[in-house]
Amino acid sequence: MKREVIVAITSENIYQLPYSINTMAVDWAQRDLERPEGTKNYLLIQCLSGYGKIHFGDKRFSIEPGDVFIWKPDAEQYYYDSGNESWCVNWISFNCIGLPIYMEESFYVSKDCPISLGLSMFDTIKKRIQEETVEGHIQAAVALFSFLSEIYICDRQAINKVDGFDITLVSDYMKQNLTKQLTLDGLSEVFHFSESYLCRLFNRVYHRTPIQYFIELKIDKAKRLLLSDGEEKIRDIAKQCGYEDQVYFARVFKKYVGMSPSIYRKSQVQ
Amino acid sequence: MKREVIVAITSENIYQLPYSINTMAVDWAQRDLERPEGTKNYLLIQCLSGYGKIHFGDKRFSIEPGDVFIWKPDAEQYYYDSGNESWCVNWISFNCIGLPIYMEESFYVSKDCPISLGLSMFDTIKKRIQEETVEGHIQAAVALFSFLSEIYICDRQAINKVDGFDITLVSDYMKQNLTKQLTLDGLSEVFHFSESYLCRLFNRVYHRTPIQYFIELKIDKAKRLLLSDGEEKIRDIAKQCGYEDQVYFARVFKKYVGMSPSIYRKSQVQ
Repeated sequence: MKREVIVAITSENIYQLPYSINTMAVDWAQRDLERPEGTKNYLLIQCLSGYGKIHFGDKRFSIEPGDVFIWKPDAEQYYYDSGNESWCVNWISFNCIGLPIYMEESFYVSKDCPISLGLSMFDTIKKRIQEETVEGHIQAAVALFSFLSEIYICDRQAINKVDGFDITLVSDYMKQNLTKQLTLDGLSEVFHFSESYLCRLFNRVYHRTPIQYFIELKIDKAKRLLLSDGEEKIRDIAKQCGYEDQVYFARVFKKYVGMSPSIYRKSQVQ
Repeated sequence: MKREVIVAITSENIYQLPYSINTMAVDWAQRDLERPEGTKNYLLIQCLSGYGKIHFGDKRFSIEPGDVFIWKPDAEQYYYDSGNESWCVNWISFNCIGLPIYMEESFYVSKDCPISLGLSMFDTIKKRIQEETVEGHIQAAVALFSFLSEIYICDRQAINKVDGFDITLVSDYMKQNLTKQLTLDGLSEVFHFSESYLCRLFNRVYHRTPIQYFIELKIDKAKRLLLSDGEEKIRDIAKQCGYEDQVYFARVFKKYVGMSPSIYRKSQVQ
């Protein structure tokens, strides 16, 4: 047997799930595939053994065991084995309602997903679907969402490391110093990097300068304080975010949030 | 302290989550509330202690500890304590992208959710949000989706029981007999119910007659067989679904699915 396909079908369409699985399979000898038109559903594949390659537009990706790749509907699909040995994959064809998460691109590849994570997700979903109940389908959707979240988190943790340095050390330091006014100069001294290297790091990971990022952390803290205690004076909140001058704080807040602190507080009341 | 509010804020809006939490809180003494305009987000509340009541349109709901209720955005919100003692609730304000799941109505109440399920979900989400990281927010979204699914499953299991009888016993019996042609008469004999009572049961839970439901189970099986082995003859698939006459099977299939078995098979190929 080269292939085992599990078809997820339920006649009860009385509910709307954010994810629903159509078919899934393990392919013990994945053949080469060229689908310029793509498929009408999302397609998620995890390579279990062997090596392959994927072409997407001008890009070439080498696929190793563990790697996960996802195509959006109608995105071109080209994948090939390495020529030496056949490869074995698990795949799931699924739908999303609403906007698709995480993946802004038509093709998403994750190089940092442990193979065991995918195997356990496929196993859970397979069992749930084979129950052939609505409950089983709902639980399969939860398992798929959970898996998509896990691979995204794995990727983010990999992205946070630039040249072996974990940039969250800097952002954690910032979070501990929100009552202060940190400078680029001060940060570069603490972390023994040049100012320009620090800027490059932040730009690569957060698409912002270190100081922009620091101010946004302060604004986040201010938002939390404004909402969690509706009575606290804005002057005191400003101080807790490192702004002695309440008027200046209000100006910065408005620049980032689009409204003054007091209007923000009123607008968000539950 | 009467209230502890946790505000979920992250400045990184680079991802789209199917669920995202805005604020959550435990209210030790929930006051009466009248919001004819509702709130701009989804609002989920679980009663932890005390008794309350909710008005929604013409309907009145008595609220006991454990009960969960959810309002869609802009749906009128009226709730009151029982008059004798104050009540304590957990609440979460959240957004959904895409279509909301499960709840076709603007107001959804679940009477069958174990109190511990809600408490553990609130606790997980609270911890995740307080991490103040993107990863934490994603995991909070997974926990919320998982909880919404669990309460829906609890409710379905309660709905399946009518007058103390679990209707899934009948649907399981049908699933074991898909190669046969069951009749209403035969079913009523097996389960010692009158035919008309059996019809009422099925109409209440599945909004179909028992025989319609049975045919849909056969069609589901046929769909699975058509897709999981692209080579199997349609005549043989018909037989496995209890249809000796392939032409008659194709007619029934087309009536339920909107296309012939062979066109369905081609249309679904991944």
